[in-house]
Formats: sequence, C-alpha cells, structure tokens
Amino acid sequence: MNSKMRINQKIVKFSAGMVNEIEDYIVTEYPLTIFINGQEFATLVCTPSDMRELIFGFLASEGVIRFADEIVSMSIDEAKGLAYVDLTADFTTSQQFYSKRFIGSCCGKGRQFYFQNDTKTAKTSTSKTTITAEQCLKLMKDMQEDSVVFHETGGVHNAALCKPNEMIIKRTDIGRHNALDKIYGYALISKTFVRDKIIVISGRISSEILLKAAKIGVGIILSKSAPTNLAIKLAEELNITVVGFIRGHSFNVYSHSNRIKFP
Amino acid sequence: MNSKMRINQKIVKFSAGMVNEIEDYIVTEYPLTIFINGQEFATLVCTPSDMRELIFGFLASEGVIRFADEIVSMSIDEAKGLAYVDLTADFTTSQQFYSKRFIGSCCGKGRQFYFQNDTKTAKTSTSKTTITAEQCLKLMKDMQEDSVVFHETGGVHNAALCKPNEMIIKRTDIGRHNALDKIYGYALISKTFVRDKIIVISGRISSEILLKAAKIGVGIILSKSAPTNLAIKLAEELNITVVGFIRGHSFNVYSHSNRIKFP
Repeated sequence: MNSKMRINQKIVKFSAGMVNEIEDYIVTEYPLTIFINGQEFATLVCTPSDMRELIFGFLASEGVIRFADEIVSMSIDEAKGLAYVDLTADFTTSQQFYSKRFIGSCCGKGRQFYFQNDTKTAKTSTSKTTITAEQCLKLMKDMQEDSVVFHETGGVHNAALCKPNEMIIKRTDIGRHNALDKIYGYALISKTFVRDKIIVISGRISSEILLKAAKIGVGIILSKSAPTNLAIKLAEELNITVVGFIRGHSFNVYSHSNRIKFP
Repeated sequence: MNSKMRINQKIVKFSAGMVNEIEDYIVTEYPLTIFINGQEFATLVCTPSDMRELIFGFLASEGVIRFADEIVSMSIDEAKGLAYVDLTADFTTSQQFYSKRFIGSCCGKGRQFYFQNDTKTAKTSTSKTTITAEQCLKLMKDMQEDSVVFHETGGVHNAALCKPNEMIIKRTDIGRHNALDKIYGYALISKTFVRDKIIVISGRISSEILLKAAKIGVGIILSKSAPTNLAIKLAEELNITVVGFIRGHSFNVYSHSNRIKFP
C-alpha cells in the first residue's frame, strides 16, 4: 500500500452505544489537472499512484493519442496536482468534439450509444484466447486477495491485466475508470501485446468500462460486480466476453461464452 | 421497482461446478442527452426514472440554473434518450468554463479544489439541525430496507432526503451523482426548505458528492460507505457534518460532530 493512497485522521466512532475518538485510515482523493501543449485539457480526481500510466491511459481512452510515442514529454508537479504533456502533433482542445454523443440513425438496433471518439477507437475483438472456469475464479481471488480490507474500508477499485493462468499487473484507484486507464497506460508504455490478455476489475461493468476494455484491445473482461444492459449489448457487438459476479465458486457469463471452458 | 430500471436476460450461470442457462435481472443503463435552448449540452448515463427531477438537479448542480422557474419548458423523448430544455435566459455552452478547475493561490490550505462553478454555488451551511445516533442508524436502515437485494445484485445507489425522524423521498440510480441530482431536482421543483434537512446516500462521499450536498443546502450527510480526505476537508470548511460507515449499530463521524446527539 502506497502511503500517499490514504492518510490517518481522528474520527468519532459510535459503536454499540459507545462513543470513542480514534485514528482511522481515510482514502486519498487527489485532483490532477492535465495540460496538453500548454492548454488546460481535463481534471481527473484520482488516487495518486502510477500517475504517468494514468495520463497515458486517459489520453488514449479519450482518443487524443494512439501510441505512447505520441507523447514527447511529460512533467508532473505532484504538490500542485498539475501535469504538463507535450504531444508530437498540434492539438486543439475541442471539448465539443470529445464529449459529443454519437446518435446513430439505427436507434435501438445496437451501436446506439457511443461518443464520437469511441467510434474511432473501440475495436471489435479478434481474440482467440480462452479461459477455464477455475482460472476465472482464481484470477479474481488473486487480484482481490492482498487488498480486501482496504477495498472494503476505503472503497477503492482494483483492475488487473492478466494471462489466463497469471496476473501480470494490478492497479488501484478510487475510480473504476482510472484503475482501468492505469492498466491501459501500462500496456501502451510497455508495448504489451494485449489481444490475448484478460482484464479483471472489481467494479461494475458499465458501457464506459466495456468501451475502455475494447479500446485496450482485450477479448475477455472479468468483474466481481454486475454489467449493465448497455455494456452487454456493446460486448455482443464488439465480440467481447463479459463475466460478472465472480464470487467464491460461482460467476455469470453475459456474452460470448464460447471463450469460457467449463469443466 | 420501476420496470424500466432493469430487464430480464438469459445468462450462463456457473456455480459449484455446474453450468446452467438461466434468466436474470440486468440493471438498465440509459444515455440521456440534454439540449439547452437547442444546443447539445451534456449526456448523462443514468437509470431511466425520475428524469425530470434528474435534469433539474443536474442543471442546478452545474450552475446553469438556481431556481426551478428558470426552466421555461422541458420535453423528453424517452425512446431516443433526448431532452430539450428551454431557459428564460440566453445560454451559451462554454464547456471550458463549466469544467475548468479553480486553482487557488492558497494551495494546501483548504478550498484547494473546486471547479469554477462550484465557487459560485456551494454554500457554507448554517443548519442548526441535530440528529440522534439512533436516528442516523434508522434513516440508513429505512432507505436501504426495500432495496437491499437489488442494490446488491444490480449495483444501484440510493439517495434520500430526510428529516431527523423520517425519510421524505428516496431516489435510485446506477450513478451516485445522479441519485443525488434527482433529490436536488425534487427539492427545487417542490420548493422544499432544505436547510434543516438531511441527505442519506448509499455510496462513497467524494468531494463531488460533498459539494452537491452543499449546493442542495443541507448541513448533514449520512453514508453507508467512506468519505475521502478531500470530502472531509471541504466538509470542515463548509460546516457540514459527515457521517460514514453506517452499518448495523455503528458509524463514524468525520466532521462537525456537534450536530450528532449521542446517548
């Protein structure tokens, strides 16, 4: 546990009729404002760890970069929560463009909800990777094992990049999206071949999380929690296997169950 | 439970070595794009219930309106997920303005993180309301009681507006922020006097949730989960009482504990 990820603070505890002043751990929430080529782009509220990866992953998710080498330089002022990124290319902040909803003419027939930049970057998976039921259970257990207490007390989320039989890296953040962006950043910087890999995440699979997995390029996403109907729809179209509610000895498969090998 | 809030879907269930195809409930994720005076403003991803309240509350949170009567008309195309809002005033979308971080010169000395519109709308509480420890426990129990199962299976969040001795209304959404915006919208539309009321919420208290409570105007916020360090800092400054981890017979008080009456 990185010491910046939580602080000690005095609180008033009420339990079974008794009142006590005690010291407790409080999870850190850290605002990080990103400037691109000198221009303010966005503020992320995050857990202050692996911030370089977070910035690479976030900018890739937003469609600002596609490869790590499009970032020429990056400096982070940790005390002030400011990051300065220089790109190889010219860059014009067009919030209008980045956040504009793409409203297709085929409403109700799938691909109904994207933002414009998603249509450029979310890929239909061509992954041939399969995973056994036992491996699904084990990867979730491995990811959560050393952080169960902190996850329960602080409400942080974990995400991991895995092979079927082993976890490669794990990242933590108060935001599900940030945890996944840190994974994305890691993959870009290390030039990891991702198509045959698996994303494991502690939080819910919303459409945004599903699209992030598609952008990273994996074919399988495993969650401890539930997917939404929109995430399942997108997963069906983008050929991604969604597994949810991985708890103890059970789980649910919501799409493309052919990649799961049952006993 | 509103039928639009979840759908039935076939899934593959693996449990204790057995594989079965079953029907399960899936939580609905619904994109709602808001146009203001004919101009695209924002897309919310939400649970499709109480959408009128959601829009009022969201626009107030964003600093676009302060009172309900600033909205002249609103029409919602439910099938397409589009809402058209007309304001009394002229309106220019300035994303730049709405999302720009306010970086004070007093970094590290509190008030360190706001967005520009928050500085206009988040109020220091003057609430004289107090609440007993037993009432804290009971309000959380009342709010969660009829939705525990769905909360656990679908991952939705609840928020409620309460008096110390009774819940006034409860709202549900897949997003914590939306659940609170629905409460805000309700308060605006019904012209409820909020200063002496209490917000109860199932999810974590981040800085954004705390600022929303401040904008609504309450002096006490109760959560089943944890606050972040930044939320606690803001609560200290804005004179708001933050209570977290309300579970069973215990809870923690993180700021301004003078409003809590212990036995």
